[in-house]
Amino acid sequence: MDMEKAKDIIVDFIGTKLGEAGISGAVVGISGGIDSALVAYLAVEALGAENVLGIHMPENATPGSEVNDAKEVAERLGIDFKIVNISDILATYKDTMPDISEATAPVDGNLKARIRMSVLYYYANMLGRVVMGTGNKTEILLGYFTKYGDGGVDLEPIGDLYKTEVREMSEMLDMPESILNKAPSAGLWEGQTDEEDLGVPYETIDKVLEPILAGEGQERVSARLGVPMTDITSLMKRLRLNMHKRTSPPIADLDELRED
Amino acid sequence: MDMEKAKDIIVDFIGTKLGEAGISGAVVGISGGIDSALVAYLAVEALGAENVLGIHMPENATPGSEVNDAKEVAERLGIDFKIVNISDILATYKDTMPDISEATAPVDGNLKARIRMSVLYYYANMLGRVVMGTGNKTEILLGYFTKYGDGGVDLEPIGDLYKTEVREMSEMLDMPESILNKAPSAGLWEGQTDEEDLGVPYETIDKVLEPILAGEGQERVSARLGVPMTDITSLMKRLRLNMHKRTSPPIADLDELRED
Repeated sequence: MDMEKAKDIIVDFIGTKLGEAGISGAVVGISGGIDSALVAYLAVEALGAENVLGIHMPENATPGSEVNDAKEVAERLGIDFKIVNISDILATYKDTMPDISEATAPVDGNLKARIRMSVLYYYANMLGRVVMGTGNKTEILLGYFTKYGDGGVDLEPIGDLYKTEVREMSEMLDMPESILNKAPSAGLWEGQTDEEDLGVPYETIDKVLEPILAGEGQERVSARLGVPMTDITSLMKRLRLNMHKRTSPPIADLDELRED
Repeated sequence: MDMEKAKDIIVDFIGTKLGEAGISGAVVGISGGIDSALVAYLAVEALGAENVLGIHMPENATPGSEVNDAKEVAERLGIDFKIVNISDILATYKDTMPDISEATAPVDGNLKARIRMSVLYYYANMLGRVVMGTGNKTEILLGYFTKYGDGGVDLEPIGDLYKTEVREMSEMLDMPESILNKAPSAGLWEGQTDEEDLGVPYETIDKVLEPILAGEGQERVSARLGVPMTDITSLMKRLRLNMHKRTSPPIADLDELRED
């Protein structure tokens, strides 16, 4: 893909969407990872540094290197930057729902993602801004995000870039090396890596999804790329099962009764 | 509308949607208002009382009459029922974001709605259940709900019933009189009533929206029903501006670059 052209389209998209809504500013959650860093860069190019607020939302357990990377992004871009530690909020949810002490890591992770969404929207509401999404195409297709958590945003500027393309575009920009080189992680529990969760490396996922979505048969793709059918089947199952995360909640349709 | 038929369609919809997802139970936020009470009744008819959990989520300021009405619904239906007071959670958000002390009532109200969504999904996640929406057609059309708050649900069983029809259907059921007779309120701040927020009574809104959506001209509807054009214009503006709440976040489309 022509990454310069892709960048222009995305920058234009951000400006146009905000213009249509009559809104001039954006709020971006900056995790220290590559996706949110890229969105911050693109938002600044579209809206100007003075119209972008970056918010880093660590827990107590979040490594300090993430804070540093997030801060470094904000400094290079010259945007306003806040740190909102979500640990007390999380602890209060747990105190309020004592059953939560037994929650599994993914259930906890979903709650954290929803807390972050609520924090971002609080600032966006107060400032009359939009919340920028940081989901990439690979995550969105596989439903590898929390419904109404990190998926709860106003627009998805990099939602048509595969994860490997996010990296490619980021390499064109003045982005901190430490961000370019770290292992992708949703940061929802300690030591989490996306590739362990998904069971297949992003390189492979992206190579496989693109031709299958363009209509090539799964078995053909498997043979051509030397990717085991079990991996492909598991990815396609994830895509199918998580479809509900990408659509509005279905409504019971009573149209037939209104036509009388 | 034939309310018996409408009820059958909705009950069938709930069973079918959960069946497709391979899920047998649901979680419903029961506020003490009529919409969530109706959804609880319909969910029980579709899934059986043992598969429905009702959660009432008051603040300290919520009148005790709401708790009593919510509890009464749960008792009549014989479903499990929990009370989760969100005041401590809300207070911790505010402590964590000191700027929030200046938040306006609507900004606060949106945060409360997102806290309630997060609580419902926590239980739904733990129990392997879905979160039932309680939005009616009038609210959904006008965007009179919090994006990723009360709008953050898995399905909207009564989403095609206008508010006045919700009442009509509820009157067919064994629902507490006090619920049938109270003024509609989203309960997001003290003394709030929906009709004050919207500026037009639900009776009028529903009478106006239906023919306009069916294609009748706004001026004609105004003249025929004797509703001032200013009211109609303000409703249509609300509908247009809040459209974004009903759709998935837009994605910057890079298709043209993939076709090379």
